[in-house]
Amino acid sequence: MHGYTADKDAFLKRLRRIEGQVRGLQRMVENDEYCIDVLTQISAATKALQAVSLGLLDEHLKHCVAQAVAEGGDVAEEKLAEATAAITRLVRS
Amino acid sequence: MHGYTADKDAFLKRLRRIEGQVRGLQRMVENDEYCIDVLTQISAATKALQAVSLGLLDEHLKHCVAQAVAEGGDVAEEKLAEATAAITRLVRS
Amino acid sequence: MHGYTADKDAFLKRLRRIEGQVRGLQRMVENDEYCIDVLTQISAATKALQAVSLGLLDEHLKHCVAQAVAEGGDVAEEKLAEATAAITRLVRS
Amino acid sequence: MHGYTADKDAFLKRLRRIEGQVRGLQRMVENDEYCIDVLTQISAATKALQAVSLGLLDEHLKHCVAQAVAEGGDVAEEKLAEATAAITRLVRS
Repeated sequence: MHGYTADKDAFLKRLRRIEGQVRGLQRMVENDEYCIDVLTQISAATKALQAVSLGLLDEHLKHCVAQAVAEGGDVAEEKLAEATAAITRLVRS
Repeated sequence: MHGYTADKDAFLKRLRRIEGQVRGLQRMVENDEYCIDVLTQISAATKALQAVSLGLLDEHLKHCVAQAVAEGGDVAEEKLAEATAAITRLVRS
Repeated sequence: MHGYTADKDAFLKRLRRIEGQVRGLQRMVENDEYCIDVLTQISAATKALQAVSLGLLDEHLKHCVAQAVAEGGDVAEEKLAEATAAITRLVRS
Repeated sequence: MHGYTADKDAFLKRLRRIEGQVRGLQRMVENDEYCIDVLTQISAATKALQAVSLGLLDEHLKHCVAQAVAEGGDVAEEKLAEATAAITRLVRS
């Protein structure tokens, strides 16, 4: 049971669509499509993955982190540090 | 015949690996794995897609753009403007 | 009194260093230094600004958001939504 | 004499405006302004720096790289590899 559990089906749907985008990229390369067109489609897939990350992070803050903070103590600090580390990875990827 | 044609198999292999990563993400969500672990794996997939983009762009500059520039004229200008637009999308995605 | 108040001097010091980097960029352009060298220094300034953002966000989560969450209610929800919006802007900039 | 020489004044003007933005950030921190507002202004400065990078890179491709490619040989290859490395740094910063 995690932050995203309530929206699990929506997240799975988005990830399946991204899988389809990545398969589409393979077809484009197989068919020797124009580099710039492939790049445009990769940007679309990257943005879609990033949007999933932001959605998961939002749920994580609202549920897991908020709950830990409400309980307080070491777990709260740990969760907050962990969230910051995840945000840092997200910003730098 | 495009910039990436010579490395087509290598690019396809990388895209198939990324497809596997996106399927792995679906399994993680299905199994209710911890949000932060899902986020870490999304960052890995995003970075892999970005690396494919940078690889394609490198080939595009070395082949399509370099050839257009060597020929000169309007096509050269067009290809350079198109490359800059693709780089801008890449930086902002 | 905000999340970063305790580290205010450290944040100011980092921002003054970034101001110096931006003035250094102006000198490089005035002296017609090589484009690639200017780009390298802009990347350094951009990363430094990003690090300040991540630092401020960390303090914001640990203080402002954590306090609102501990109090609960609408303010908590508002603060969480606001933090997510800021993270989204940060990831996309 | 570099790619950006013709637009030198415009680039300097943009960098001076960014310097002003960074000084504005210092005032915001000194006045204990709200974290989220500071973050919003940092995003604006980061985007402005990124736009300068993209502008310089565009000029670099159109002038330095295009000229090297027109001349051909090792210098052309070197300039292309150098441009790709700069784009990579830009994408990852």
